[in-house]
Amino acid sequence: MSDYAPQPADKFTFGLWTVGWPANDPFGVATRPPLDPVETVHRLAELGAYGVTFHDDDLLVTEPDRDKAIERFKKALAETGLRVPMATTNLFAHPVFKDGGLTSNDRDIRRYALRKVRRNLDLAAELGAETYVVWGGREGAESDAAKDVRAALARYKEGLDLLADYVVEKGYSLRFALEPKPNEPRGDILLPTIGHALGFISQLARPEMFGLNPEVGHEQMAGLNFVHGIAQALWQGKLFHIDLNGQHGPKYDQDLIFGHGDVKSAFFLVDLLENGGYDGPRHFDYKPLRTEDPEDVWVSAAANMRTYLILKEKSAKFRSDPEVAEALAASRVPDLSTPTLAPGESFDDLLADEFDLDAAARRGYHFTRLNQLALEHLLGVR
Amino acid sequence: MSDYAPQPADKFTFGLWTVGWPANDPFGVATRPPLDPVETVHRLAELGAYGVTFHDDDLLVTEPDRDKAIERFKKALAETGLRVPMATTNLFAHPVFKDGGLTSNDRDIRRYALRKVRRNLDLAAELGAETYVVWGGREGAESDAAKDVRAALARYKEGLDLLADYVVEKGYSLRFALEPKPNEPRGDILLPTIGHALGFISQLARPEMFGLNPEVGHEQMAGLNFVHGIAQALWQGKLFHIDLNGQHGPKYDQDLIFGHGDVKSAFFLVDLLENGGYDGPRHFDYKPLRTEDPEDVWVSAAANMRTYLILKEKSAKFRSDPEVAEALAASRVPDLSTPTLAPGESFDDLLADEFDLDAAARRGYHFTRLNQLALEHLLGVR
Amino acid sequence: MSDYAPQPADKFTFGLWTVGWPANDPFGVATRPPLDPVETVHRLAELGAYGVTFHDDDLLVTEPDRDKAIERFKKALAETGLRVPMATTNLFAHPVFKDGGLTSNDRDIRRYALRKVRRNLDLAAELGAETYVVWGGREGAESDAAKDVRAALARYKEGLDLLADYVVEKGYSLRFALEPKPNEPRGDILLPTIGHALGFISQLARPEMFGLNPEVGHEQMAGLNFVHGIAQALWQGKLFHIDLNGQHGPKYDQDLIFGHGDVKSAFFLVDLLENGGYDGPRHFDYKPLRTEDPEDVWVSAAANMRTYLILKEKSAKFRSDPEVAEALAASRVPDLSTPTLAPGESFDDLLADEFDLDAAARRGYHFTRLNQLALEHLLGVR
Amino acid sequence: MSDYAPQPADKFTFGLWTVGWPANDPFGVATRPPLDPVETVHRLAELGAYGVTFHDDDLLVTEPDRDKAIERFKKALAETGLRVPMATTNLFAHPVFKDGGLTSNDRDIRRYALRKVRRNLDLAAELGAETYVVWGGREGAESDAAKDVRAALARYKEGLDLLADYVVEKGYSLRFALEPKPNEPRGDILLPTIGHALGFISQLARPEMFGLNPEVGHEQMAGLNFVHGIAQALWQGKLFHIDLNGQHGPKYDQDLIFGHGDVKSAFFLVDLLENGGYDGPRHFDYKPLRTEDPEDVWVSAAANMRTYLILKEKSAKFRSDPEVAEALAASRVPDLSTPTLAPGESFDDLLADEFDLDAAARRGYHFTRLNQLALEHLLGVR
Repeated sequence: MSDYAPQPADKFTFGLWTVGWPANDPFGVATRPPLDPVETVHRLAELGAYGVTFHDDDLLVTEPDRDKAIERFKKALAETGLRVPMATTNLFAHPVFKDGGLTSNDRDIRRYALRKVRRNLDLAAELGAETYVVWGGREGAESDAAKDVRAALARYKEGLDLLADYVVEKGYSLRFALEPKPNEPRGDILLPTIGHALGFISQLARPEMFGLNPEVGHEQMAGLNFVHGIAQALWQGKLFHIDLNGQHGPKYDQDLIFGHGDVKSAFFLVDLLENGGYDGPRHFDYKPLRTEDPEDVWVSAAANMRTYLILKEKSAKFRSDPEVAEALAASRVPDLSTPTLAPGESFDDLLADEFDLDAAARRGYHFTRLNQLALEHLLGVR
Repeated sequence: MSDYAPQPADKFTFGLWTVGWPANDPFGVATRPPLDPVETVHRLAELGAYGVTFHDDDLLVTEPDRDKAIERFKKALAETGLRVPMATTNLFAHPVFKDGGLTSNDRDIRRYALRKVRRNLDLAAELGAETYVVWGGREGAESDAAKDVRAALARYKEGLDLLADYVVEKGYSLRFALEPKPNEPRGDILLPTIGHALGFISQLARPEMFGLNPEVGHEQMAGLNFVHGIAQALWQGKLFHIDLNGQHGPKYDQDLIFGHGDVKSAFFLVDLLENGGYDGPRHFDYKPLRTEDPEDVWVSAAANMRTYLILKEKSAKFRSDPEVAEALAASRVPDLSTPTLAPGESFDDLLADEFDLDAAARRGYHFTRLNQLALEHLLGVR
Repeated sequence: MSDYAPQPADKFTFGLWTVGWPANDPFGVATRPPLDPVETVHRLAELGAYGVTFHDDDLLVTEPDRDKAIERFKKALAETGLRVPMATTNLFAHPVFKDGGLTSNDRDIRRYALRKVRRNLDLAAELGAETYVVWGGREGAESDAAKDVRAALARYKEGLDLLADYVVEKGYSLRFALEPKPNEPRGDILLPTIGHALGFISQLARPEMFGLNPEVGHEQMAGLNFVHGIAQALWQGKLFHIDLNGQHGPKYDQDLIFGHGDVKSAFFLVDLLENGGYDGPRHFDYKPLRTEDPEDVWVSAAANMRTYLILKEKSAKFRSDPEVAEALAASRVPDLSTPTLAPGESFDDLLADEFDLDAAARRGYHFTRLNQLALEHLLGVR
Repeated sequence: MSDYAPQPADKFTFGLWTVGWPANDPFGVATRPPLDPVETVHRLAELGAYGVTFHDDDLLVTEPDRDKAIERFKKALAETGLRVPMATTNLFAHPVFKDGGLTSNDRDIRRYALRKVRRNLDLAAELGAETYVVWGGREGAESDAAKDVRAALARYKEGLDLLADYVVEKGYSLRFALEPKPNEPRGDILLPTIGHALGFISQLARPEMFGLNPEVGHEQMAGLNFVHGIAQALWQGKLFHIDLNGQHGPKYDQDLIFGHGDVKSAFFLVDLLENGGYDGPRHFDYKPLRTEDPEDVWVSAAANMRTYLILKEKSAKFRSDPEVAEALAASRVPDLSTPTLAPGESFDDLLADEFDLDAAARRGYHFTRLNQLALEHLLGVR
């Protein structure tokens, strides 16, 4: 067994707002003091992380002067070698965004939101970020009377098209990653799932500059299979970034440690990321439990990375187990990669098939054995 | 008050399998005898419906000879004037499709599925259908080990591209409407929501030939806002057809009568369909309750149409109420249709805004009043 | 049509924390200033409310001196005639309760929690409250390893038994109402539904002193039928109090205005409360939307009461409609009140029944018509 | 590592209807032929099971003559030594039960249902069953207008009281175990959760004869924590029997293999059953996937037992790991078993506590470390 020690090459990253969450929630005040972003950078580096990410406002938590805050942050990055592969804008916490930023019913506020993103795009580029996440957590409604969704999507598109133009104009090497979420803090949020965001991207002026930043828990809040969603995003070439955490089904957004929700789904997710051509950061967007003290926070940060590495090792063993290969073949899983028409074959040719319907119907798929093999790899009993 | 009598001009349509459902379910056998499609056509015509739709297999329920069944069906259509605006293929009931049709791990079965759709496309075109629905209810999995989702999407695309080519080649005036569903009968179904299907369509060879047939209950099984989904589909020009019914949130697929689930959402849906540029059929895909007898079935069919007409009348009153117009303006709902940049304005120009952040943050949206007005129109107390 | 003007006789009550919620949420800070409880009392009185309820800490929002705060509050009550039929303790907001109050793993904290409740029981009695609500929102866990649930239930019982003894000893005319909730702010909360609380009460030393304070949204967060739950609570004589609000299925706790969630369920709830023997307060436990300004708050308070009165009127019309009576009879709804054995009949006697299985199976229940009649009463088209 | 070979002493039991499910579902016909109960008995015995359970109708699947069917079944039991620890009645499949059995609106049908249960009680006693399960899957409604829930609960009580009297009168050593389920096949089922059934039992004439048969997936369909529910049932002395299977959250009833749903919850469940004083059968109520052939069925039966034994081994290791013991103590988990009041201490004495609120609030619970330790035991990396 390896010791599962994270290395920068593993590309583990954390949001400043994750370990820095002071643990206020809808029914209770903070249980932990504010955390200095500089301390976060140093602690994450010690734990083996690759990078750190931030909202514009995160830097100001303990140092309200923006320039000073940036300077201190850069210094910490330089001292530790930590990267900033992603940045994003906070368009949700301030009261001004209570009806959204890019799709607020209030045009003045939409304009302000655009300026706020623009300003942080400059900083993101300066810090070397490659991905700019857009989570529209306040873009939504509680009443179907209160929001013209078609107009809202048009404004969303208008805003994102402008921002993409700006990035091109400036020559920044940034791509945008939309982060879907079905609800919370709004009753219904626009672009609620991976799918809706993929559909929306196809309507943008520069679709190639837009991909996704899906979050484990957000899809699971809608009862959807996250691994399926990631597979579709990969298939469409749109997995630009990923938010790893845990969730127990449709309820409030739990932001548990990665693997502390549905661990079997986490296993298949790691298996897909490691074997599916994704080479971006493994970004943890979680919240240390409100019951925990400041030192527990770092235990929780480490647990995210360690769990990922455990599952990665299991994935490798699973894929190299001859019995698994045999079971996959027996279940005809690899055959699905064979085109349905043979090379050169036409639809008309297909009519000539001799096909024994009843015999085909009787064939079993033996998925039980395959799933049990996966489970036993997960449980470490093979 | 009108008498809410449906007319063919209302474009109400029903699947043969809806009123014809014999009421078998996972825990019980049928409670009603098979229903002759010819009787269905006549009864629906009497009730004021515009058309009827079918799966290939539906015609064979009481007459196993395909040619005779088609002949009898056509005769009934001719006698009643009922249209067939939509048809579809049953790729889910037969054991051969237990792992799917177009994405079965078994290539022989994928080929058979293509032939089965092709055959019914010919019939659909012959009967004058304009929309061909594809519901891939068995395209999915119960284990993440059992299905290579990226390969499955590639096969799905291969199959649909072939079918679109065939329609073009034959000169049929058919368009395809994909019907999303998150789960049931599979643990997870591919293209689980409106969004995922919109994203997928953008990858097809002939995207213009593909749109959606969203179903009320299917989105609500994932806890999603159906009205929002339909708005996105309309915005993308992809609402080709619609399945109206009712559901009570995430649970088994209830297929209740339209309006018998979340009636406020049904109200906003009708409001959107009537004012949003959709002019296709209002298709009911519901199941008469298993407790009901054969005559109750027709009561249930009528209830779908009547409820739609009641809600349509309410929508008209809501939109013409001056107080509603005033409340919408106070909530700045119409302002969202104003582009964020003025004509000729550039992103740079926007930096010149004078903006009082605190004052903007204090402005209330008054959504409460607006939502209450909508509710009172729904309840008929205004 | 009546004007739906609330009167004290309607027994509408509000928590101080409802209209007073400053609209901070997990992703955003407050959008409204603190609201003085004295202003709340006066505004609610003007709107026609019957009473006001409070957590111990609610009084201190704008006046930190407890004695002064109580004095000011009492004065406002005296000036307006508003009653305080219910009070409760805040065992969830302070960091000390992060692992619960009565079931915290920390015994010192359990002891502190008991003292905190005790102190507010005295005030509740002094203010004439009849019901003391216990919402154990922090009594729960995020990990099954972290909480010995059997021990937690034993401690819960120990604490509640002590508090009941105290009330008896003091001669207070207070009864306790447990408020179930499935999750949020904890991953899983103890006594998650009406049912679990009913089961738990049967184990207490003084079960007659304990009943329920069920909340619409809390049951709906678990996808449960609230009307069914209330019916069971009434059947067991345990509906001591009720929290009215709205929710859209399993997601975060929305606390919408009553009727702004599932309005058909709200209709049947009012129908049950008005006809089912409940004569306690109609207590609104909701949150004015975060988008709203301070004046919108009072619009929202009024909307709760008005919607209740609208639904009450509809219930009366529904129950007095002869066609409804006829439909209920046709569906054999009233027959369920007839005991299955006739008076004097024994189980053995029942064996003598002549029973035509097939004929009985064929009988339809005509629930479709009945449900449609209810819907049309709700929609005001009958 | 053990070989996880099931032994009769492990008390694994299966319903005839589980392996015997022919794999028909709401959207498809059977994919497997009927299975002879005699074959089931022999196959289960070979696999190491302890017993088999049945609905009255299950015996008639391949042999319609009841007496012959019973004779053949008894012979198989005698040949294999398999026990029948539990039996139950099918009150849901026949059309006559479409509105329920014991709570049907149709009194004739309620009477018939009672006779049907009574008849099978005799057979259950004859076969030596100790537990009689009552799953009221059809006791419910789709419309709140269609069922007077208070009357329904009264009829439910009437029926169960009669059946309990009958058992006492006959001297059978049978206890009843109610099986809760929130929905499916009815829109809402009475006694939807463990809690509601516990509450209901407290109202019965002979509550000591009634306990629960909770099913993993049924609670998870309501998003509830099954382990918490079982803990409450154990705490109330009401865990008479248990149905083990798997489910992926709120959706249709999946009846997956035990451990093939939320495996971490399954781990904590086994941990609780093995250490919580439950000594009844470990009963699997699952469905082999519809994709599987007849031989796969036995692979699936074996997988249930093997997974249980794997988790049992892990539970033992977890509980004996000194680091876990230390972490539990650090999280003060064992302290919750210490009464809040010391022996002899009164509520008044407690007022003398010196308590440093801020210091207590700062103490962390270190649940992260504990949960990670549990996860790593589950994953076999410790």
